Amino acid sequence: MTTAATYAVADWGTSRFRLWLLDHQGHVVAERRSDDGLDTSRARGFAETLEDHLASLRAPADLPVIICGMAGSRQGWVEANYVPVPADLTAILSGAVKIAGIARDVRIIPGLSQSGSAPNVMRGEETQLLGATLARNLRSGLVAMPGTHSKWVELDEGKATSFSTFLTGELYALLAGHSILRHSIGNAAETVTPDHPQFTAGLELMLGGNRRMLGELFGIRAAMLLDNLPPEGAASRLSGLLIGTEIAGAREKFGISATVTLVASGTMAALYAKAMTAGGLTFDIVDADEAVRKGLFVAASQLWPAQKG
Amino acid sequence: MTTAATYAVADWGTSRFRLWLLDHQGHVVAERRSDDGLDTSRARGFAETLEDHLASLRAPADLPVIICGMAGSRQGWVEANYVPVPADLTAILSGAVKIAGIARDVRIIPGLSQSGSAPNVMRGEETQLLGATLARNLRSGLVAMPGTHSKWVELDEGKATSFSTFLTGELYALLAGHSILRHSIGNAAETVTPDHPQFTAGLELMLGGNRRMLGELFGIRAAMLLDNLPPEGAASRLSGLLIGTEIAGAREKFGISATVTLVASGTMAALYAKAMTAGGLTFDIVDADEAVRKGLFVAASQLWPAQKG
Repeated sequence: MTTAATYAVADWGTSRFRLWLLDHQGHVVAERRSDDGLDTSRARGFAETLEDHLASLRAPADLPVIICGMAGSRQGWVEANYVPVPADLTAILSGAVKIAGIARDVRIIPGLSQSGSAPNVMRGEETQLLGATLARNLRSGLVAMPGTHSKWVELDEGKATSFSTFLTGELYALLAGHSILRHSIGNAAETVTPDHPQFTAGLELMLGGNRRMLGELFGIRAAMLLDNLPPEGAASRLSGLLIGTEIAGAREKFGISATVTLVASGTMAALYAKAMTAGGLTFDIVDADEAVRKGLFVAASQLWPAQKG
Repeated sequence: MTTAATYAVADWGTSRFRLWLLDHQGHVVAERRSDDGLDTSRARGFAETLEDHLASLRAPADLPVIICGMAGSRQGWVEANYVPVPADLTAILSGAVKIAGIARDVRIIPGLSQSGSAPNVMRGEETQLLGATLARNLRSGLVAMPGTHSKWVELDEGKATSFSTFLTGELYALLAGHSILRHSIGNAAETVTPDHPQFTAGLELMLGGNRRMLGELFGIRAAMLLDNLPPEGAASRLSGLLIGTEIAGAREKFGISATVTLVASGTMAALYAKAMTAGGLTFDIVDADEAVRKGLFVAASQLWPAQKG
């Protein structure tokens, strides 16, 4: 028996668009992933892009849609203002912005901001964070959400109190694809595995107190020229150096003693698990896809409770 | 009275080509700069590119030419093998490779390599280094040559004993032009000045023992979104963070107590002078252009002594 869709929920980022139809319990009825990120969608029209994807899943015309991510940024569909920390995670839901001028009920969840001496922003991760805390009944502690822009958030009694962003994933892509290291890495950027000895070596260098990341990066090229370091080794070493630098920085920033909630999927989860272990941290993994869906579902349930059950 | 040219000398890098005609005392008779770096020249032919530039300066057909830089790399004209450290700086000259199959006497100076646990390479900077040591009668000490790939070299009794490379300049260009920070910096990448308070703030953060460069980078975007940090401020802060990280790394690596010889020109010299001062280092500036010309001239004088004087 096919269950009817109660909500459509979407994570709409800079480069990716993910859409799920969920039933009244939050189970996935249908799913769609595409490269219709901000740039593509802006050119074509956000409403048109969304409706096309909904039509491909045969979603009814009155199915409400909730969206998180960069679609709510200044360069997105409609700007959903940031909620400043400290913020109750469920409070961000009440700030969801309704899209005007279209027939369908579509809302965009706001991001979080941190002002003061360490200004910071997030969009999309606040929803993933909400889902992860619900999945683990987590009220206090540190949550790490690795990715293009890795987010580390401190929670205290259900409130996000402060957070940091590390440019790890973006820097990896830039260095592997556009710097002098591209000659060492070639097409191997996606081949990194947590068990590669060069990944471990890169981690250990940066977790051991080394401050010379800018120097170690060039060492990858030199190792290729002088020691024939192969592309997979170069990619693994680069990944280890960058993730190791992130973990060392987070350790310094947050003085971590308790278990970290690691919100990640697939290879990313495996790489960060290895890095956290090497850095002496304990962690509990929550699947990132499930977390964002759960957060979106909870947001939808609060906005449109009559449609539930 | 116009002095006749005795040698042509060139610094031929990845993106730039600089050619000088020098008299028998090393004074500049004529000069040419262009964007005919490796990629352009490989497509067109290295010999043709060189002859065109020589012709534009009306250089005689029998004028000998010495070249340093990436033209001697595997992707260059002819590969000039690296000389391993520890290396007497004048010894690198004896390894100059003669280009076969052309009428003119053209030689390419080899680079330096460092094998072992910290593999490293340089091409072009070894010639600048030689010129700088001659300009200052320097036999021992630390020499910093900032740029796309900043080089720091330890000298002991006229020998280069070890060196490090920091990817500072390349990372600046990538982050300012191709990362999410490009939205914060726009066309302001070249506007950094040593007196900008954001440059100083970036320096101080990283020189003060902060290990969170990956986190501070994203802070530039957040400061633009939340605090309206203008493009010049964003560019200056990025530059301060990266150069500060380099200086902190070099300080850690070399345990610097003596005066550093800083080989740099123009804005680069001013930015590194400010950064070294902020990092508690004393320094002595040698102009980078003069240093590389002097190194090339000494190499030419040793290769073709009969033509001197």
